[in-house]
Amino acid sequence: MNYAMIAYIVGAVLRIEGVLLLGPCAAALYFSENVGWYYLCVAAFCELCGWLLVMLRPKDQVFYLKEGCVATALSWLALSFFGGLPMYISGQIPHFIDAMFESASGFTTTGATVCQSVEALAKATLLWRSMTHWIGGMGILVFLLAIVPLSGGSNMNIMRAESPGPSVGKLVPKVRHTARILYVIYIGLTLLEIILLIAGGMSLFDSVNHSMATAGTGGFGVRNDSIASYTPYLQWVITVFMIVFGVNFNFYYLILFRQFRKALGMEEVRNFILIILASIFFVFLSIRSIYGVSDGLRHAAFQVGSIISTTGFTTADFDAWPQVARTILVLLMFIGSCAGSTGGGLKVSRVTIAAKTVKKELTAYLHPKSIKKIRFEGKPVEHEVVRSINVYFITFLLLFTGSVLLVSINGYDLETNLTAVAATINNVGPGLAKVGPTVNFGHFSIFTKCVLIFDMIAGRLELFPLLMLFHPGIWKEVCRRRK
Amino acid sequence: MNYAMIAYIVGAVLRIEGVLLLGPCAAALYFSENVGWYYLCVAAFCELCGWLLVMLRPKDQVFYLKEGCVATALSWLALSFFGGLPMYISGQIPHFIDAMFESASGFTTTGATVCQSVEALAKATLLWRSMTHWIGGMGILVFLLAIVPLSGGSNMNIMRAESPGPSVGKLVPKVRHTARILYVIYIGLTLLEIILLIAGGMSLFDSVNHSMATAGTGGFGVRNDSIASYTPYLQWVITVFMIVFGVNFNFYYLILFRQFRKALGMEEVRNFILIILASIFFVFLSIRSIYGVSDGLRHAAFQVGSIISTTGFTTADFDAWPQVARTILVLLMFIGSCAGSTGGGLKVSRVTIAAKTVKKELTAYLHPKSIKKIRFEGKPVEHEVVRSINVYFITFLLLFTGSVLLVSINGYDLETNLTAVAATINNVGPGLAKVGPTVNFGHFSIFTKCVLIFDMIAGRLELFPLLMLFHPGIWKEVCRRRK
Repeated sequence: MNYAMIAYIVGAVLRIEGVLLLGPCAAALYFSENVGWYYLCVAAFCELCGWLLVMLRPKDQVFYLKEGCVATALSWLALSFFGGLPMYISGQIPHFIDAMFESASGFTTTGATVCQSVEALAKATLLWRSMTHWIGGMGILVFLLAIVPLSGGSNMNIMRAESPGPSVGKLVPKVRHTARILYVIYIGLTLLEIILLIAGGMSLFDSVNHSMATAGTGGFGVRNDSIASYTPYLQWVITVFMIVFGVNFNFYYLILFRQFRKALGMEEVRNFILIILASIFFVFLSIRSIYGVSDGLRHAAFQVGSIISTTGFTTADFDAWPQVARTILVLLMFIGSCAGSTGGGLKVSRVTIAAKTVKKELTAYLHPKSIKKIRFEGKPVEHEVVRSINVYFITFLLLFTGSVLLVSINGYDLETNLTAVAATINNVGPGLAKVGPTVNFGHFSIFTKCVLIFDMIAGRLELFPLLMLFHPGIWKEVCRRRK
Repeated sequence: MNYAMIAYIVGAVLRIEGVLLLGPCAAALYFSENVGWYYLCVAAFCELCGWLLVMLRPKDQVFYLKEGCVATALSWLALSFFGGLPMYISGQIPHFIDAMFESASGFTTTGATVCQSVEALAKATLLWRSMTHWIGGMGILVFLLAIVPLSGGSNMNIMRAESPGPSVGKLVPKVRHTARILYVIYIGLTLLEIILLIAGGMSLFDSVNHSMATAGTGGFGVRNDSIASYTPYLQWVITVFMIVFGVNFNFYYLILFRQFRKALGMEEVRNFILIILASIFFVFLSIRSIYGVSDGLRHAAFQVGSIISTTGFTTADFDAWPQVARTILVLLMFIGSCAGSTGGGLKVSRVTIAAKTVKKELTAYLHPKSIKKIRFEGKPVEHEVVRSINVYFITFLLLFTGSVLLVSINGYDLETNLTAVAATINNVGPGLAKVGPTVNFGHFSIFTKCVLIFDMIAGRLELFPLLMLFHPGIWKEVCRRRK
């Protein structure tokens, strides 16, 4: 294994984080908050660590998938650790594991909080929480690829490890250019949302925070009731943008280059929209009697958009909704957004292909000699892709059930345990019952919080990169090298 | 499609059912219950229908997998319908859908009841309920194969549609002989349990009922508190036999022919026992403080054996146990028993192979060029088997989530809905909360009961045979034929 290269990447990531930590420092300066000093110290510490690691400049840049996985997993662990430090040492979040939870929840764009009152936090901390969403949404390694030149296939192996979806599509032949285009679209859409929110009367600070949290499909808000106390116009704007950021970014790329026909023909995007419309319809039917038509539609659209895009903002306590609506929302958590978006979950493309696999299996009973391939996005899907999707489902299932079992030690009811794991592994945020929209994750035991932190990072990196760290083969290589 | 052959098989199944319905008639005669007349009428009606269908003696016996599936699915629907009729027309179960639910629950060896008090039922009905378990456990079509000669590969296609597990193993070259050996083992073990229960002081009637329900891993009891009021000795006997009937019957075949080394080396059986021991240990730790050591161990062993074998007998209200124990029991519902046993669930072999798939995937990240196959039971597993197991998991998942969504319309909490579907699709019986061990399924709406009946039969037939009935291709063929 190319250790020097892994260290180099982790170091580069830390150096970027160090620079980003100046964001909350600036906010603290502007709002004259003392908490800024802590951010400044951590920023310096982060730079120092990053600089030391980058010093080990690797001789060769050759980089395989395993190194891509390990580098990604370690980068995300380091990101979460350093991201949580200022919240801990400043006393904003008094417990170490809580600060780590909040930071991991931020970077993985989960948005599950341990804070009882976010309004009690400093503005600098609020900004940092939103920034973690924004950075984590597109992926910090993708950002790294956009600015650092790496040789040949190496960067593809990083991109594959960090990007969501069953297969990584490069928009343009060069990974570096792809990463740049993605970031341009990302920044553009975020700015557009900020403008629309300000136009609706939201303050600049709130707009920036909410836009970054929406863009990363995160879900950390700046008010205790999330988005509930804003005007309907602002809620609708956020609804639309949550869905927008759940769409495969290839769609916007195609729109940008005027390939409208191709863009509108994207099967995953169409299915995503269809699922959203159907869910809004049934949730609306179910809650209409509580809120009436206009409010009911708004709450249904907001909550469906928020959950399927795995953002996790709330305008209403959906835990108190009728069971059909609650069940639909739980299912949407698992479906998640499109591949190639900033959202989490299993991804619409995986679910679509899995459903087609079942149909194909039934057809095989009918015509055993038929060898038709599954088609997706108008193209036949390679067996290898189908296989890897199947394995992904099974891995997800095993990790999910294992986590529920470990969380059950905490002693809470099944609904809390199931939805706490579902909300973290799918990077959603709020669940039901004791992790519903009106409560937080602070009451869990330290052990449970560690399990959920693991689930958040595993979910964000699509399981395998993080699980790789536990593969005996990796450790054997490490030991062999030591000898 | 060979319609005449399908009709012939359904007819033959009905004729067997007609004969079996004489069982409760005899019980009614012995206990002088009037209800016997209803059973006699339905027996005659069943014979008549069966006779009419068998009359369409097919010209050719050629039979493909699709016909095997359709014949099996229709046979099971017919079985459940005629099995429920006497309970309905005798007024023992006053509602039609309830009677169908009870009958389907019996034949599929689920053991979920709609009766508030089973002690209020006639002895004839109690016996019939246990008999449905016994018949459904080994499979009535397997029984048919044991007595009716069919040509060539035809019977293999029936066996494949009805038998549980990822791949059908014939013990001996001839399917007919395999079916006979299976039934000999089945009858032998059932008789052994009856003797051991009588030796412990249980009445003959109770022993026969409980042994048949254990053998089929069903779970219908003759007392309202299931097995709770019997002596510890009797509870231990039933514990052991529940586990015994959850073991792959190949194991007993090997034992019978003195191939001890091969029998003890069976990976699936070893994993099954390991899972049971580990589960008993953790459940015991969790409930020790409630019951003390001796009772705690007995309840833990009984409940773990009952749930993993998907029997569903109870000695204690496990719904009131600590969350860890409850969660373990829910997970065991999904794992289920061994392939080639009378139990339900996903099956230990499928879970084992799935877990190995995940490990292999991680190894592929490490050594992308390695092409090692997964090994199970000491042999490499063909890609086709792995693929079909993957698809099975995904189909199961889709059916499970779809069912939970439909059941949620009923308005109950998520825990009830999830475990009601889990307990029926895995053919277990009791779940948690409103379908816990102390309550029954009678309070669900008619629609929900229909969904659960579907799940029970789908689970027993391992999904595809029943789902085949909904494949448009089948209906296209039917329509084409009509023209």
